Amino acid sequence: MTDLPRGNWTGSYLSDLASDSDHFKLHFLRGEEDLVIQTAKKIAAAGHGLRLGHIPWINGVSKMKMHCPYQRLPDILLYIEESVCACASLGFVGTAGSTIAESIELMRKSDAFRKDNRVMLSRKELFKNTLRKAAHAWKRIIELRLSEEEARKLRFFVDEPAFTDLHWGMFVPAIKGQGTEEQQQKWLPLAYKIQIIGCYAQTELGHGSNVQGLETTATFDPETDEFVIHSPTLTSSKWWPGGLGKVSTHAVVYARLITDGQEHGVHGFIVQLRSLDDHMPLPGITVGDIGMKFGSGAYNTMDNGVLRFDHVRIPRNQMLMRVMQVTREGKCVQSNVPRQLIYGTMVYVRQTIVSDASSALSRAVCIATRYSTVRRQFGSQEGGVETQVIDYKTQQNRLFPLLASAYAFRFVGEWLKWLYMDVTQRLQANDFSTLPEAHACTAGLKSLTTSATADAIEECRKLCGGHGYLSSSGLPELFAVYVPACTYEGDNVVLLLQVARFLMKTVSQLGSGKKPVGTTAYMARAEDLLQCHCSFKRVPILSFFLLDLLLHCCYCTMSTEDWLKPSVLLEVFEARAVRMCVARAQSLSKFPNPEEGFAELSADLVEAAIAHCQLIVFPRKGVKQQLQNLCNIYALNLLHKHLGDFLSTGCITPKQSSLANDQLRSLYSQVRPNAIALVDAFNYTDHYLGSVLGRYDGNVYPKLYEEAWKDPLNDSIVPDGYHEYVRPLLKQQHRNARL
Amino acid sequence: MTDLPRGNWTGSYLSDLASDSDHFKLHFLRGEEDLVIQTAKKIAAAGHGLRLGHIPWINGVSKMKMHCPYQRLPDILLYIEESVCACASLGFVGTAGSTIAESIELMRKSDAFRKDNRVMLSRKELFKNTLRKAAHAWKRIIELRLSEEEARKLRFFVDEPAFTDLHWGMFVPAIKGQGTEEQQQKWLPLAYKIQIIGCYAQTELGHGSNVQGLETTATFDPETDEFVIHSPTLTSSKWWPGGLGKVSTHAVVYARLITDGQEHGVHGFIVQLRSLDDHMPLPGITVGDIGMKFGSGAYNTMDNGVLRFDHVRIPRNQMLMRVMQVTREGKCVQSNVPRQLIYGTMVYVRQTIVSDASSALSRAVCIATRYSTVRRQFGSQEGGVETQVIDYKTQQNRLFPLLASAYAFRFVGEWLKWLYMDVTQRLQANDFSTLPEAHACTAGLKSLTTSATADAIEECRKLCGGHGYLSSSGLPELFAVYVPACTYEGDNVVLLLQVARFLMKTVSQLGSGKKPVGTTAYMARAEDLLQCHCSFKRVPILSFFLLDLLLHCCYCTMSTEDWLKPSVLLEVFEARAVRMCVARAQSLSKFPNPEEGFAELSADLVEAAIAHCQLIVFPRKGVKQQLQNLCNIYALNLLHKHLGDFLSTGCITPKQSSLANDQLRSLYSQVRPNAIALVDAFNYTDHYLGSVLGRYDGNVYPKLYEEAWKDPLNDSIVPDGYHEYVRPLLKQQHRNARL
Repeated sequence: MTDLPRGNWTGSYLSDLASDSDHFKLHFLRGEEDLVIQTAKKIAAAGHGLRLGHIPWINGVSKMKMHCPYQRLPDILLYIEESVCACASLGFVGTAGSTIAESIELMRKSDAFRKDNRVMLSRKELFKNTLRKAAHAWKRIIELRLSEEEARKLRFFVDEPAFTDLHWGMFVPAIKGQGTEEQQQKWLPLAYKIQIIGCYAQTELGHGSNVQGLETTATFDPETDEFVIHSPTLTSSKWWPGGLGKVSTHAVVYARLITDGQEHGVHGFIVQLRSLDDHMPLPGITVGDIGMKFGSGAYNTMDNGVLRFDHVRIPRNQMLMRVMQVTREGKCVQSNVPRQLIYGTMVYVRQTIVSDASSALSRAVCIATRYSTVRRQFGSQEGGVETQVIDYKTQQNRLFPLLASAYAFRFVGEWLKWLYMDVTQRLQANDFSTLPEAHACTAGLKSLTTSATADAIEECRKLCGGHGYLSSSGLPELFAVYVPACTYEGDNVVLLLQVARFLMKTVSQLGSGKKPVGTTAYMARAEDLLQCHCSFKRVPILSFFLLDLLLHCCYCTMSTEDWLKPSVLLEVFEARAVRMCVARAQSLSKFPNPEEGFAELSADLVEAAIAHCQLIVFPRKGVKQQLQNLCNIYALNLLHKHLGDFLSTGCITPKQSSLANDQLRSLYSQVRPNAIALVDAFNYTDHYLGSVLGRYDGNVYPKLYEEAWKDPLNDSIVPDGYHEYVRPLLKQQHRNARL
Repeated sequence: MTDLPRGNWTGSYLSDLASDSDHFKLHFLRGEEDLVIQTAKKIAAAGHGLRLGHIPWINGVSKMKMHCPYQRLPDILLYIEESVCACASLGFVGTAGSTIAESIELMRKSDAFRKDNRVMLSRKELFKNTLRKAAHAWKRIIELRLSEEEARKLRFFVDEPAFTDLHWGMFVPAIKGQGTEEQQQKWLPLAYKIQIIGCYAQTELGHGSNVQGLETTATFDPETDEFVIHSPTLTSSKWWPGGLGKVSTHAVVYARLITDGQEHGVHGFIVQLRSLDDHMPLPGITVGDIGMKFGSGAYNTMDNGVLRFDHVRIPRNQMLMRVMQVTREGKCVQSNVPRQLIYGTMVYVRQTIVSDASSALSRAVCIATRYSTVRRQFGSQEGGVETQVIDYKTQQNRLFPLLASAYAFRFVGEWLKWLYMDVTQRLQANDFSTLPEAHACTAGLKSLTTSATADAIEECRKLCGGHGYLSSSGLPELFAVYVPACTYEGDNVVLLLQVARFLMKTVSQLGSGKKPVGTTAYMARAEDLLQCHCSFKRVPILSFFLLDLLLHCCYCTMSTEDWLKPSVLLEVFEARAVRMCVARAQSLSKFPNPEEGFAELSADLVEAAIAHCQLIVFPRKGVKQQLQNLCNIYALNLLHKHLGDFLSTGCITPKQSSLANDQLRSLYSQVRPNAIALVDAFNYTDHYLGSVLGRYDGNVYPKLYEEAWKDPLNDSIVPDGYHEYVRPLLKQQHRNARL
């Protein structure tokens, strides 16, 4: 889809394509030509909307109303070529013909996977519906003999939180990572075939981030060779685990291990919760759902649960013993498996979270960008059409940096996959050298990308004006379902403090000759990056002229164009991160007690951690022009947003920041013609987007109007309650009314 | 409620009170003493929780469980004195004994005003419930013969968007403001007695902010002396008006006036929509609800509606003709009533929005602050209790600036009431001189306070960790119900652009001798504020020493303590606003076409407008120490957040910003002991707060646990859908299952 008339192709991807005839064939065809008909048929068969309206000689499309002339057909064809190219090159989901594409089609066509009525369902109906979807998806996975990865993608397109997320994403990996060979052989086949359903019971009512503070106990009873799992206090109730409330038959439960009256830290235990016969909770177990959560639909499809144990006994071999064993006599024995292995799992989970952030963000940006081209407001000259809101700089200034972030997160997500592979290979070879850096890196990126995405979804909602507030825009539910990512798997502030701690350690070791590795490698150049390029201490002669220079020009030769050079931007971001880290380290060193200093300066440390993480996301490789523009927008927007950091550390001057801002504005103009192509390249189906405002065909208003009438309030013309509560008021009978 | 043990009173309001024995009497009493018993009885009778647990000799309290020793009684008594003082001095809602207090009690005790089940109801049940509440409230208003203001407060405590908001808040004021005397005499009595119910139909499916772009037409037919109201296109459908969907019998409809084939701008018309007999829509009228909106509960209690007219005829005298009349012959005649009067209404509406922002923000802050003292995480030494999360600097750094803003918005809201009165008096005296400034000021404050509040509610939710995501925390619904304030009554970005336009005009007139008035008065000192105090052009002799000074010290004598002086902070904020405005004006002057320049630089102009508006909120009068601390936190936090502005305009140096940051940290420590008292002073009842996390008695965990079991999913132990969708999976019968 392009919203640009032919005359405006100059400077857009369309003119690029036109000029690159070796690689692209542009079709300027009439409606009745063969290629048009074939392609249109394909589009229609796939059930996509057509921007141009209907083509009468194709079945099934005729009901669509015509609202733009046939001449626009070439745009559609171009869209197809462009988006297929984009998919292929960027690796976005859903390229036609793959098993993934089949899954997408399944979702779209089967009534079982309907999403649009979700916000209107009661909690019970909603939940039952989710159980139904999970069963349908599983049946399909079995029928198609999907691989684990393919099955994961199919569940992704179901697009609804469900107990299966925890079964596959936490229960199975916990057993794989922490169970012995024997335990894996016993439990994994049951889990793989869904003969048992598991969840991950760690968080408690009174304890979240601080795992070492968990209160649930697992006391070894040598007489019976069993552990006694118990909830000693109200605050020790397990609270939040997904899938626990109504579905799971088993759980990996984290509890304080006690043998012989001594505590041995927190460990995982496999505990059966419900009967496999009638699903009733087993004796000593109290379990239920913890109640409604943010939004309608959203995470209310998940049975986050509460769980209490009253001296529940399990066999000794149900403690996950890969790292530490409890013997028949109740002795704790460390195995020779390195504890660091669990960090590998953490890297994996956080890598998927970054990848999910990029999906959620690109989805919101896709909706907001498309609607911004449909929506018009103000600026009409003598009764003509109003201006598309995407043409306003204030809109571009909010929207395009989010578009840039969606791409940036996508690339950093891909890179994290590589990092995880690298870490895994090293761990297998007993090389733990990169682990602390990889751990800090994933922790920081988890925090950075989830916070940015949550804020961005809400910003996209606001960018859609009033209509973004309607459930049918898809954005309210996307927001509500996404925001917990900022809290689960590590609260974002707690994670940034971990990153800050790692950075302070790295800085303190700079003098020792220990080379910083990976994403902190730039710190090896700290000395150079700390040199203020305008430092007057280096200037031998002073004059008014020179002083002016000093005050206005750090990287003295810089012009507006210099802000487009990746090397310049990168260096400025590196300088900022290094300077902030070093300054914080200096402040810390003034405290007699380092821990006290860390606590006192924690808010500043978080800022240094953010500066470092923003640098990691910074794309470094050579990229094509449009992506380079996005990359520059990503960097220059952050530079503007955190201008205080850059100025206070002397990395740039006010004059330079003003040049950078000019450059940013001009980049917006360059991205504008390609905005739709860039979001179309995400290749989301209308079903997956689930947004009337973000429809591929741009046919927003008629659809909004149509959707409105589906609300239950419109079932009757006169609403329920009129006779009891409205009529008595109007008829002045409220004094006598029995309300 | 205080969460501080006696030994820690030093430096808190408690020690202030203790030392000020002339004004405060501190009660250190034993449980059986008379004053204690009487007060405790009062608390119990009012149904409040007791932090200390139960007092066995008072009825109705015995069921509460004891969880802290009797010695804490004095804290409660202190609370009562403190909060009553606070209420009285700050004018917060709900001082005991007032009719408002009665309304609050009514809400709390009557089942009709129950709120806690709202998120679980279906749309239809929810809406019927709202109709019921509105009827109950009206009955009560009649019974108690409440004044208009008292009735407004009662509706405020119902705490649920309803059609009555639009009837009283928009329909009635529109007739008052735009109707002739005659029209007012005819329609207002009907509206006051609710013999008709009205709404305000302005926004259309395709048109929001740009009122002049509305498409609905009102064509005068001289033959019948009627207007023909018509919706010529789909996008002209009225869309969003609250109360329109299912309830209103009448609407003020905005439409393009056409007489004799000529257009005469957009005007308001009173149109009857539904029969007063059977509530059916009248001929030619299509009306319904526009569907579900953000969140569960929240704004879904409101019947925002869609409305289409098919040549609906109304008598000529139903056009609101105070400013312009259409004669029997179809001629348009301007009345001698100044058009500016409508701006007065706008000032009024926006003033109430600022006031509502302060309520919503203080509510969220109250919940987050209380829960931050209850929640503990990390930091336990050898198995002792963990640290209260409010004691972490990262938590304070996010929470206390919001607390400061809640107070700041409260004060600026009070000031706006004065401004509105002042404007009204001037308008009555035909003095329009302050109107542009007042208009810009309220537009800017509406934008600033609603954006800040929406973000702050979500931040408070995150500050409550995982539990903030539960509906029972009250924060998800508060967020969902609040956010539309950023869009309605003027999109926040559009409003800031209006402010920017006004500021640019003010700057351009600085040389002309025209004095800027009101909130822009500081611009008269532009010349002084533009002088960089460290400008080297003023320095006669250069030396290394002086240069160092120049680079590190603008207000050269400034120390950390200087950042606490209101005059210093104010000047820095004024300098920043002036410098940003002047810089933008200079950039604008470089464009040959000013409108083009305005469009190109709009994002920068918005920032200048924000700088100006933040300055308006800045409290200026002498305030008591704790409030002065909040005032400084408000300013210093903004200074840190917008550091780039201050540095790039040369208002402060990096060194100074670092001193300001040190000061901010130390202010947090001073506010910490008073945090609970400061939020208790808002004096919200538990019923109004509607949050398990924000309970006055701090009894969070048992209540969370209790609430969980009320979820419909817990009606049965085995969930609906188990037999159809879960059991077949577990029993490996999915291949044959009929899903």
